[in-house]
Amino acid sequence: MFLSELLPLAKALEIINQLKFSLKTEKIELESAYQRVLAEDIEALINSPSFDRSAMDGYAIKAEDSFGVSPETPAHLNIIDRIGAGQKSKLKLKKGEAIKIATGAPLPTGANGVVMEEYTYEQEDHLEVLSSITPGENVSRIGEDFKVGDLLLSKLQQLRPQDVGIISSAGHSQIKVFKKPYIGVITTGNELVKFKHEIKGSQVINSNYLTLKSLIESTNAIPVLKHCPDDIEQVKKEINNFLKDCDAVITTGGTAISKGDVVVDAVEELGEILFHGVSIRPGKPIACGLINQKPVFMLSGFPVAAMVQFDVLVRSYLLKMQQLEYSPKIVKRIASKKIPSQLGRTDYIRALTGDKEVKPILSKGSGVIRSMVQSNSYIIIEEDVEGIAAGEECDVLLFDSFISY
Amino acid sequence: MFLSELLPLAKALEIINQLKFSLKTEKIELESAYQRVLAEDIEALINSPSFDRSAMDGYAIKAEDSFGVSPETPAHLNIIDRIGAGQKSKLKLKKGEAIKIATGAPLPTGANGVVMEEYTYEQEDHLEVLSSITPGENVSRIGEDFKVGDLLLSKLQQLRPQDVGIISSAGHSQIKVFKKPYIGVITTGNELVKFKHEIKGSQVINSNYLTLKSLIESTNAIPVLKHCPDDIEQVKKEINNFLKDCDAVITTGGTAISKGDVVVDAVEELGEILFHGVSIRPGKPIACGLINQKPVFMLSGFPVAAMVQFDVLVRSYLLKMQQLEYSPKIVKRIASKKIPSQLGRTDYIRALTGDKEVKPILSKGSGVIRSMVQSNSYIIIEEDVEGIAAGEECDVLLFDSFISY
Repeated sequence: MFLSELLPLAKALEIINQLKFSLKTEKIELESAYQRVLAEDIEALINSPSFDRSAMDGYAIKAEDSFGVSPETPAHLNIIDRIGAGQKSKLKLKKGEAIKIATGAPLPTGANGVVMEEYTYEQEDHLEVLSSITPGENVSRIGEDFKVGDLLLSKLQQLRPQDVGIISSAGHSQIKVFKKPYIGVITTGNELVKFKHEIKGSQVINSNYLTLKSLIESTNAIPVLKHCPDDIEQVKKEINNFLKDCDAVITTGGTAISKGDVVVDAVEELGEILFHGVSIRPGKPIACGLINQKPVFMLSGFPVAAMVQFDVLVRSYLLKMQQLEYSPKIVKRIASKKIPSQLGRTDYIRALTGDKEVKPILSKGSGVIRSMVQSNSYIIIEEDVEGIAAGEECDVLLFDSFISY
Repeated sequence: MFLSELLPLAKALEIINQLKFSLKTEKIELESAYQRVLAEDIEALINSPSFDRSAMDGYAIKAEDSFGVSPETPAHLNIIDRIGAGQKSKLKLKKGEAIKIATGAPLPTGANGVVMEEYTYEQEDHLEVLSSITPGENVSRIGEDFKVGDLLLSKLQQLRPQDVGIISSAGHSQIKVFKKPYIGVITTGNELVKFKHEIKGSQVINSNYLTLKSLIESTNAIPVLKHCPDDIEQVKKEINNFLKDCDAVITTGGTAISKGDVVVDAVEELGEILFHGVSIRPGKPIACGLINQKPVFMLSGFPVAAMVQFDVLVRSYLLKMQQLEYSPKIVKRIASKKIPSQLGRTDYIRALTGDKEVKPILSKGSGVIRSMVQSNSYIIIEEDVEGIAAGEECDVLLFDSFISY
């Protein structure tokens, strides 16, 4: 297939955007809720605070008793009780009286404010109040933070520490969240082995195995991995196996465009091919298929091509499956040197971006992982642009965009 | 203790910055390496590629045989062998010959280039080459990506997918990384219960328990949690227990400045108090102690105060313990309304930041979690600034800064 027969990137993305997915939910303990995505609205089951409570360590008094006082002319009150957090005084406070109170304890009946310990002087059961308070001072009112039935968080919120905190204080111990999708990964290639000590003859370490595992982990989805030789029946068997429990399948290798390659043929036999070949570089021979309404993303065997294909075409779908937002961070930088490109093709050039400049990390092959390790970004050259001149401004997609949380 | 006796924030941060910590390392399987921090340099154990290999599906030939050819005047070659990935031809290629070769297979002896399948026409064992290639074309040279002994990644690198990939292809199956620190969390408070159904009288749900758990998870460290009543002997016992296996301890509650409060007293008895009371708001009554060279961060019982204290004073230390960088994202925004502050105190105002403006989420107490849930940032008012006028530019610290990966 020649370049002119390749699908433009925008078309390929459009097809992927229209892919359906089923959102599954699960009840989980709030203990494991951090960073999960709510599948329900959260309403308060209790008031917070659930009673008028002291916001300070100090003395509950009638505010009127403190009006006009100063360190020189303090108010003199009788301490009639002392209550700690979690305790409630059984006495009713009257004019001229004080109840020592800890932060968080319920305001005694009859009191309407709390004077902070710092502004008092206590001797036995006699209290000098050195500063005036207004009614309600240092008291947190019932329901001040939220009331029973208040909507505290909405469905689709990804939970931050404070969100977990408010759900807890609202009385929930379990919540409904979206399930993390399982993504089956099948790496193919007769020449591939997992470890150095296994290498015989012209065999090669299958670095895609752990790269794909990490890429999927970077989206918060759960990878399930399998290596498979270049045998159509075995590839079909593994895809079928994965499609039982997984929500999508990703393969590497066996996607050459020139001929029926093993993975693409396998998917075609099991379902349908939505596209095969996209005018991007690196990554041209990517294919996408559909089997029983579940997508199969067929990436290259070349490590760098597979990473670019994942970043450009697969990542946003895996995030969407979890109702997570993907916000690519694209910045403008000055190209440090000339970068040739070809009309009709979108290029993703590995690059090292600084504050002002971006330097392409040029390397020959689409298999050269080291260039990816030395990069922190891609320069994007759109299909209607014929290369970038040295000193020209260009769009840079930062790898920081690829962190999900 | 009055405001003038409080430690300025910069001083408190300086003390925390000087805290020692021991960096422990561990060997892990590369399978679990994503996002871990390297505790060793990684050198290549093998060459990549480990032999000259074909970068394309096509035909290995002598480039000279293709010079000057075109679709109209193709070269005519004899196909003498066909090799797949992982296979090596036993034949030596001569002028006028071609060997069909799969991507990744070793270049046959005698060949010096590969012509892509797309630019050929094959009939039985006869090959027409329609396009010329240069010597070396479509061949990945031995060691082109890296050579044995090359430094591929340096100590302290936090591993991205491509880093895991290159370590794998360099022949490593295990790596040395920094251990994740264990952080003991003791929440204190007689009035606190974990769940709604446990509430009796004026008891309150202990939302700090799960908030602190999530906050620590947000730094990649490992939280270990325990609730404890306000009893100095029990608090001492729990701290001692945690200090056996944990690298630091965080407490909530029991830090009032006015009097010897239970947690601060416990730490003072077991070790030393480095500071108690910092001129920030919210969060003034934070304390920091040292027991057997391990730090104890004593946070407020008030949920919002505890979160601010964690974000401002504890987070960077927990990251540093893991050799992770903390890069607070501070942006300039226009204040939508007047925000009063006090000279000599650093304020962290919960706020909702947009593209241009920032709106303070004002609420009375330092316990009002809902304000934290409605915020996405803090407005920072430095201690030498006396409030911010409506329309004035101010510094905003985005909560996005608090995500580690």
